[in-house]
Amino acid sequence: MRTSELFTKTKKELPSEEASINAQLLTRAGYISREAAGAYNYLPLGKRVLDKISQVVREEMDKIGGQEILLTALQSKELWELTGRWDDKVVDVWFKTKLKSGSELGLGFTQEEPLTALLRNYVSSHQDLPLLIYQIQTKFRNELRAKSGLMRGREFLMKDMYSFARDQAEHKKLFEKVKQAYIKIYERLGIGDLTYFTAATGGSFSKEFSYEFQTVAENGEDVIYADKTLKLAVNEEVNGPEALEELGLDPKKLEKIKVSEVGNIFNLGTKYSSLLGLNYVNEKNQESPVIMGCYGLGVSRTMGIIAEVLSDKNGLIWPEEIAPYQIYLTYVGSSSNTKKAAEDVYKRLTEAGVEVLYDDRDARAGEKFADADLIGLPYRVVSSDKTVEEGKVELKKRTASEQKLVEAEELVKIFTNNHKVTKSD
Amino acid sequence: MRTSELFTKTKKELPSEEASINAQLLTRAGYISREAAGAYNYLPLGKRVLDKISQVVREEMDKIGGQEILLTALQSKELWELTGRWDDKVVDVWFKTKLKSGSELGLGFTQEEPLTALLRNYVSSHQDLPLLIYQIQTKFRNELRAKSGLMRGREFLMKDMYSFARDQAEHKKLFEKVKQAYIKIYERLGIGDLTYFTAATGGSFSKEFSYEFQTVAENGEDVIYADKTLKLAVNEEVNGPEALEELGLDPKKLEKIKVSEVGNIFNLGTKYSSLLGLNYVNEKNQESPVIMGCYGLGVSRTMGIIAEVLSDKNGLIWPEEIAPYQIYLTYVGSSSNTKKAAEDVYKRLTEAGVEVLYDDRDARAGEKFADADLIGLPYRVVSSDKTVEEGKVELKKRTASEQKLVEAEELVKIFTNNHKVTKSD
Repeated sequence: MRTSELFTKTKKELPSEEASINAQLLTRAGYISREAAGAYNYLPLGKRVLDKISQVVREEMDKIGGQEILLTALQSKELWELTGRWDDKVVDVWFKTKLKSGSELGLGFTQEEPLTALLRNYVSSHQDLPLLIYQIQTKFRNELRAKSGLMRGREFLMKDMYSFARDQAEHKKLFEKVKQAYIKIYERLGIGDLTYFTAATGGSFSKEFSYEFQTVAENGEDVIYADKTLKLAVNEEVNGPEALEELGLDPKKLEKIKVSEVGNIFNLGTKYSSLLGLNYVNEKNQESPVIMGCYGLGVSRTMGIIAEVLSDKNGLIWPEEIAPYQIYLTYVGSSSNTKKAAEDVYKRLTEAGVEVLYDDRDARAGEKFADADLIGLPYRVVSSDKTVEEGKVELKKRTASEQKLVEAEELVKIFTNNHKVTKSD
Repeated sequence: MRTSELFTKTKKELPSEEASINAQLLTRAGYISREAAGAYNYLPLGKRVLDKISQVVREEMDKIGGQEILLTALQSKELWELTGRWDDKVVDVWFKTKLKSGSELGLGFTQEEPLTALLRNYVSSHQDLPLLIYQIQTKFRNELRAKSGLMRGREFLMKDMYSFARDQAEHKKLFEKVKQAYIKIYERLGIGDLTYFTAATGGSFSKEFSYEFQTVAENGEDVIYADKTLKLAVNEEVNGPEALEELGLDPKKLEKIKVSEVGNIFNLGTKYSSLLGLNYVNEKNQESPVIMGCYGLGVSRTMGIIAEVLSDKNGLIWPEEIAPYQIYLTYVGSSSNTKKAAEDVYKRLTEAGVEVLYDDRDARAGEKFADADLIGLPYRVVSSDKTVEEGKVELKKRTASEQKLVEAEELVKIFTNNHKVTKSD
């Protein structure tokens, strides 16, 4: 993509209405724009990041046998009354609306009810289980205050998975599978090292823990107590002697860290299946309610957190898997050969399938380099009068200060050769 | 995918609340389920079709330079008041809701307003134009009556593209580009032959036409008068002598046909740019409002129409580009080698990247064949006691009555060798 064709432009000014670093950087770099408090538009660069994060999540959910669906946002009052969650006093984040007939509808903020009800059509026997079902869907939450940019929105993209098991042993297996998939997702998203599996509620003998995945963040809204060696943590609520013992944590080894939540996994037990009548019959012809789990991962929220925790004072720093493009290519200098060389590199790389954002503007080098840093692609490639003389271009990692000179052909090889060799550059 | 793992099952009964053929077939085959009138859940098979149609649309929009974004569903009252479209008397399909603060919000049913307003941040000079910008987004319309299954929903997936041009000549070029892209899309979706470019309003000298793409449909809600040779039509409104002359149509050659709309393209002129102040400055430093066009394509609606017009009494018939899987594989017979052969074929095909739905149930042949027809994948492959003796399997097109015997190895070749050779089978 040529920046001359991309409709967004970078902005120098901080958006006045945005207090959070993620919204400031993403807005200035042209990834998002605010439509209303807590509701953001995804512009071409932002849409690409959102799609790439979704794809990483989808692949890992599919690998463990997840079946992808898409439920409706519109929710009918009658269903949610059956579980007692229609009442605004019970759930205070509903957006509600009405049909012309006067019937009330709500906008889904989570989807235990419709999926449990739906499965009554398909699950009746032990042979129909276990199941892992997920969707990547726009959710709506009428938050009293929308803040922190993409991190707490009123409209946001979320992956919600639900598990359906016959017994506790099977449920635990599914739970563990999803946990491992989450760990892989955060690794692929470039925040594996920063993310802690955190017991959030439960404990003290029989009460099962629910867990959060928490990522170290200077401006995080939560606090955890983490054992950095075990990669296990507890939040304030669970930080007591009994729970720590159950989890095998030594209080002396725990470190207090500010974090932001990037995912959560819950046991739902038979709460929804009992209330809504999702039962199965076992080999002995006995009927029991299905045991459920629920696994959330805020896709747009995680995009905001990554923007925030992996950035530096000059701008965003995207991990390769989710960068909108791999290379920010440009030219600086006055020789006509310099631009020509950049055009040639652009042509070769795009033909080889490498994702390149080509800054083809006639602008000052300082401006171009500042934009490259702000937009935060993993690599910057520059053709200059000097490099052209040597028949080369300059390759620099966003996070490195050194650069190296490479020939165009070598560059294509580096970025097509499974792309992994570049990681150490 | 093994049907034993797929959570949906086919149903013999017609869903009582569905009057339309598309909803009946898609529900019985397990592609969708109705959550509320006009709002459908996409189950694993349905989600795959929806994704594939979206991908075809995306590819053709990208090819003509479309930039993909994702705008919010939540819309603020203040913006829409500026164009006079907030009022329920002007727009009668709004779903409206409220923030806790009491501020009113609407759910987007189209998005001229937010996109025009957004572009004020990025468009100011003639160098910033032309632009083609689109999204594939869930839209909400509070229809008085939701009917016809996926064809008229209250919540549905739509591709909406908007063009931004400097002058009429440039606008016409963009308009023509999108028209050609639409024609390609319908060809790829398997309804090219059935779809007519139809003048829908306008004409009589200076008034520009707006156009619809209309697909021949027995239960269609519209009527067109089509010249089958020119592949051009008019609807009732435009079917007058002056308009026909302007369009170069001979009334004697027109045939009255029942159709369903699969897309529409409009000139917006400067209506929204004037009201919202989206202007650009030309080379002579003169300021003018941007000239806009709007191009809709209902993704889920088109899925419903394809389900309806390409089906037969036995079930769905998906074109290859958008079938959830290419092959319905199964086995019939009692020899243990028969199932083994099917398992072997399944392994080979999936390893070669061919999308196979493998009916691995122990069920009667009649039941399996009925399901194969109902689910409507382009090809059926069967291993039977007889074919196994010959070391082969039976390959049959969904639309053909003859079948042929092929070896497993040959089958893999047919479906991996660019897959085009199979079209004539």
